[in-house]
Amino acid sequence: MAATTISPFHGKLSSNVCSPLKLNLSRSFYRPLVVATSSTMEQQNKSYWAAIETQIDTHLKKSITIRPPTTVFEPMHHLTFSASKSTAPPLCVAACELVGGSADDAITAASAIHLMHASAFTHEHLPLSDGPIHVGSTVEHMFKPNIELMTPDGMVPFGFELLGLSEQAQKNSDRILRVMIEISRAVGSQGMVDGMYQEMLHAESKGQDEEIVEYVCKKKEGELHACAAACGAILGGGSEEEIEKLRKYGLYVGMIQGMVNGAGKNKEGRFEIVKKLKGLALKELEMFDGKNVDRISTLLEV
Amino acid sequence: MAATTISPFHGKLSSNVCSPLKLNLSRSFYRPLVVATSSTMEQQNKSYWAAIETQIDTHLKKSITIRPPTTVFEPMHHLTFSASKSTAPPLCVAACELVGGSADDAITAASAIHLMHASAFTHEHLPLSDGPIHVGSTVEHMFKPNIELMTPDGMVPFGFELLGLSEQAQKNSDRILRVMIEISRAVGSQGMVDGMYQEMLHAESKGQDEEIVEYVCKKKEGELHACAAACGAILGGGSEEEIEKLRKYGLYVGMIQGMVNGAGKNKEGRFEIVKKLKGLALKELEMFDGKNVDRISTLLEV
Repeated sequence: MAATTISPFHGKLSSNVCSPLKLNLSRSFYRPLVVATSSTMEQQNKSYWAAIETQIDTHLKKSITIRPPTTVFEPMHHLTFSASKSTAPPLCVAACELVGGSADDAITAASAIHLMHASAFTHEHLPLSDGPIHVGSTVEHMFKPNIELMTPDGMVPFGFELLGLSEQAQKNSDRILRVMIEISRAVGSQGMVDGMYQEMLHAESKGQDEEIVEYVCKKKEGELHACAAACGAILGGGSEEEIEKLRKYGLYVGMIQGMVNGAGKNKEGRFEIVKKLKGLALKELEMFDGKNVDRISTLLEV
Repeated sequence: MAATTISPFHGKLSSNVCSPLKLNLSRSFYRPLVVATSSTMEQQNKSYWAAIETQIDTHLKKSITIRPPTTVFEPMHHLTFSASKSTAPPLCVAACELVGGSADDAITAASAIHLMHASAFTHEHLPLSDGPIHVGSTVEHMFKPNIELMTPDGMVPFGFELLGLSEQAQKNSDRILRVMIEISRAVGSQGMVDGMYQEMLHAESKGQDEEIVEYVCKKKEGELHACAAACGAILGGGSEEEIEKLRKYGLYVGMIQGMVNGAGKNKEGRFEIVKKLKGLALKELEMFDGKNVDRISTLLEV
């Protein structure tokens, strides 16, 4: 096969492409996980989230090496790391640790969740014949449209493959199956896809309907974060009550992200909604105790 | 939510849309599974495949009812049934029965495989800003491009969800996990996505390179059929030897489909290649015996 000699790149790659984290900083949804302050505890929390992000990135880089067919794996590698960052994958790991599990138990699920998010992000900005789903998208395209269509179609099953081949799948296949179902639902027709569709309609009609904005935030960022937290708790061996509490906590964390950086970002009255959501989120953490609660609650500092 | 009142349809739906099987007949890749003759055995074989197809359709129709959000489920229903038919899903069921399993054990996997195929089919014909992946596509679009982009993004995880929630997952989670891995690989970056990409490049360059045509047939139809047959054998409780024999049989069946109806359809010398592939396929069936072998081998009658 001569496939490896064909370049899939749309234009000349800038040096930034090789430093995806640098590229991401200006992208929508991205926010530093923790607001920097001088206190020791906050410094520790910041290091905690940074360490989780590094673990997830390392796992993804090890899994998505640039190998033949490079026409497929080169864009897959770049689109995985150049998509906006979501707080859902690190939340998955933190939830696992909160219920007493080890970070290692949740790294594959967190990586799979990032792949789903990056896939949706790429498709949302794809130049279709009548414009992208994300109305008004200004994302810079590194590849031709057909590559940005096909590559995410490989990323989604790859996320499931990673889960199926994980060490956890050998040790506890029931938990991994449950996680796969959780992820399928969150990213599928009744979750993220529904949210993307409603957001597009909302943007086209230039509506400011509060109910629709909250619905979009719930379906897009909310349910992905709810799923991430629930998956972490499942993999960490949490009780059903812990799983459900963390699912709700994740829902509110994600909705806050959506109100601040997503569909709600220009909405009047968003600060009141965020305040209300923070209160609800903290309530879900009441049954947990210890320093891990302080750590996981820093996700509310947006 | 007012979502259910918004129509996702691009234009007026013709009555054909409600009879997807009728619509499909002229689409690429479709061929009747069995050549009709007057002999009793061939009539029985024909009924056998028709019964399997009905079972798969019934399972999919029961799973994808048109329910809220209808903006999502209406196109999902239509795109599932209006995509071209592939022989991979029925092969999955037949392989399961060949190793002594019951058809019911493989229906969910066969349905998931159809969802993956229908998703790829839709994306392959999507009107991107610089034209569809399937160069020269003349498929009629029932929905706006954004719907034909997003809906398959929901169909793929839905296929995994069906598997995760299946009765088989309760009874034998290891087998279902293995099937999920098989499907992920066949439809992902090293399988169907690679084949689609190479086919597009091949069509753009108007090349007739024999090696590339065979590679595309292997990656697109070949590996999907190989996966389908292996999944059927896994779910039917086949031995590792049976699984691998059926995987190879599926590979050749799929490659023949590709040579006759896919990338190889206009290629000179395709009949010689098909003849060779038939011989190789029949060799893989030698270890099996009984009337089920005759039945499964009718897939070679293209």
